[in-house]
Amino acid sequence: MSIRIGILGYGNLGRGVECAIRQNEDMQLKAVFTRRDPASVSILTEGAAVCHVDDAPGWKDRIDVLILCGGSATDLPEQTPEYVKYFNVIDSFDTHAKIPQHFEKVDAAARANSHVGIISVGWDPGMFSLNRLYGNVILPEGNDYTFWGKGVSQGHSDALRRIEGVKNAKQYTIPVESALEAVRSGSNPEFTTREKHTRECFVVLEEGADAARVEQEIKTMPNYFADYDTTVHFISEEELLTEHSGIPHGGFVLRSGVTGLDKEHKHLVEYRLKLDSNPEFTSSVLAAYARAAHRLAGEGQSGCKTVFDIAPAYLSPKSGAELRAALL
Amino acid sequence: MSIRIGILGYGNLGRGVECAIRQNEDMQLKAVFTRRDPASVSILTEGAAVCHVDDAPGWKDRIDVLILCGGSATDLPEQTPEYVKYFNVIDSFDTHAKIPQHFEKVDAAARANSHVGIISVGWDPGMFSLNRLYGNVILPEGNDYTFWGKGVSQGHSDALRRIEGVKNAKQYTIPVESALEAVRSGSNPEFTTREKHTRECFVVLEEGADAARVEQEIKTMPNYFADYDTTVHFISEEELLTEHSGIPHGGFVLRSGVTGLDKEHKHLVEYRLKLDSNPEFTSSVLAAYARAAHRLAGEGQSGCKTVFDIAPAYLSPKSGAELRAALL
Repeated sequence: MSIRIGILGYGNLGRGVECAIRQNEDMQLKAVFTRRDPASVSILTEGAAVCHVDDAPGWKDRIDVLILCGGSATDLPEQTPEYVKYFNVIDSFDTHAKIPQHFEKVDAAARANSHVGIISVGWDPGMFSLNRLYGNVILPEGNDYTFWGKGVSQGHSDALRRIEGVKNAKQYTIPVESALEAVRSGSNPEFTTREKHTRECFVVLEEGADAARVEQEIKTMPNYFADYDTTVHFISEEELLTEHSGIPHGGFVLRSGVTGLDKEHKHLVEYRLKLDSNPEFTSSVLAAYARAAHRLAGEGQSGCKTVFDIAPAYLSPKSGAELRAALL
Repeated sequence: MSIRIGILGYGNLGRGVECAIRQNEDMQLKAVFTRRDPASVSILTEGAAVCHVDDAPGWKDRIDVLILCGGSATDLPEQTPEYVKYFNVIDSFDTHAKIPQHFEKVDAAARANSHVGIISVGWDPGMFSLNRLYGNVILPEGNDYTFWGKGVSQGHSDALRRIEGVKNAKQYTIPVESALEAVRSGSNPEFTTREKHTRECFVVLEEGADAARVEQEIKTMPNYFADYDTTVHFISEEELLTEHSGIPHGGFVLRSGVTGLDKEHKHLVEYRLKLDSNPEFTSSVLAAYARAAHRLAGEGQSGCKTVFDIAPAYLSPKSGAELRAALL
């Protein structure tokens, strides 16, 4: 029988999950829940319902796993502890510093209601976290490096758009190739913020805006750009739409470590993602962990989990014997 | 309390495990078991015993996990099902085609004796398998690619040494860079054996041996070299010892896949290992999974497991809360 999936929130991530479900034959989308007027929301899946978010609890016996597709700033801190009362849930909560408190809240609600909630699923946190963990346990003496990009940072693009005189903008985070090479060489370098990433901005100005002043404001903006070598390109709105409409991202997790009696042997583990669509890749990871949540709940487990707590075999529709024969 | 480790078999792998234990503060080497005369074996760890393999069962209450460091051809098929009767065990069984039958034998013996046996731990099978699995579940529509090298193939080096007139030899397996680039481009290429890897041989001849005949024999050797572009270098024994004494290895696992309603977005996941010492890296993986075996056994679990069945958090000495705060 198919795993019955619900989606809460129908933006880029929700649509990505909807597409991901189509690529997983053991899953079926039952309903999309939205804060908008359901009549105004048109989805891609025939036979799936579109409902108002207030009606979600009424679906608790018709959905195996609810995938929460809201944002980490205000949606998920409320939604995940709330909806885990009714459903097994998955979220992509990505505010790293607040994960411990999010975990505690979801864990308490999940245990009280005998559900499974898997939080912080995606690629960072998510697949990158897994690679940091595997790297650390295999090479206990070593250094971790995470590089992001080349990719679009939504937060930095938003920051550009808040500047007076900016009509539209897109920001790319770019890892510094020579820094990556230094890590790969095994020299265990230490980097400043500026040495690891550069930032490239494509900016459409409002008519009459002062380009020099905008560029100065960008390059000196604290937290976002001041600590980086930042390049600013002023382009037309048309060029922005045709050349910069995608949401690519990716990055690198590296672990550089030593083994041997005198630590004489160096080892490098490198994990790289190159993604045409950040939200669709995140969605694909969410779908795989939804399968794990369903299975864990079926075994009678409950509580909050992260990618660290999920045995890899739970992510696959294949049996243990099939996996051992095909992929081990 | 430390995890009490035993090592069975004291070659490159056994010594590697001994060194790995020194890098894991929660582990302690209690005994090395050898088929040789124990008096003739000198180990690196003060306070650990060296015993004959026949005495191993007598240690069953003094060792938490026994790490089996024998070979896959003849040692492990016998040893793992035998010693899991007395201990929780880990092995690095790497004959891919025979993993299913090895699993069944270990599983039956492990269950009958309430022990945990984790098999096929290392990097391939092992970390590479994990990356194949994660890649497959996240990108269900895509292609898998595994490349090995640059590294020393023990089996191919042995094959060279069996040729008449060859005194000593070392063989490197090298991935073809243009094939890797084709995969990274997202073109989902299909490769012949020849297109993925080349083989480079460094050969020391016996005095008076016919170099041309040896080279011909190498390049036409079925299974080992005939299907590859093979380069042969004749060098002095001294050069072999000074320039080719290491056992480096590594390789790449790539998953290339698509997402989106019309499969319009490409994604690439690339995992790379670059290892100065193949046996020491494998040993480090074995040590981490020994920790997991100990914990699973402590929870009352039993049976045969592989890397697919182990939740990543079990590999770390840190608590769940520490891991979430530091690595997620």
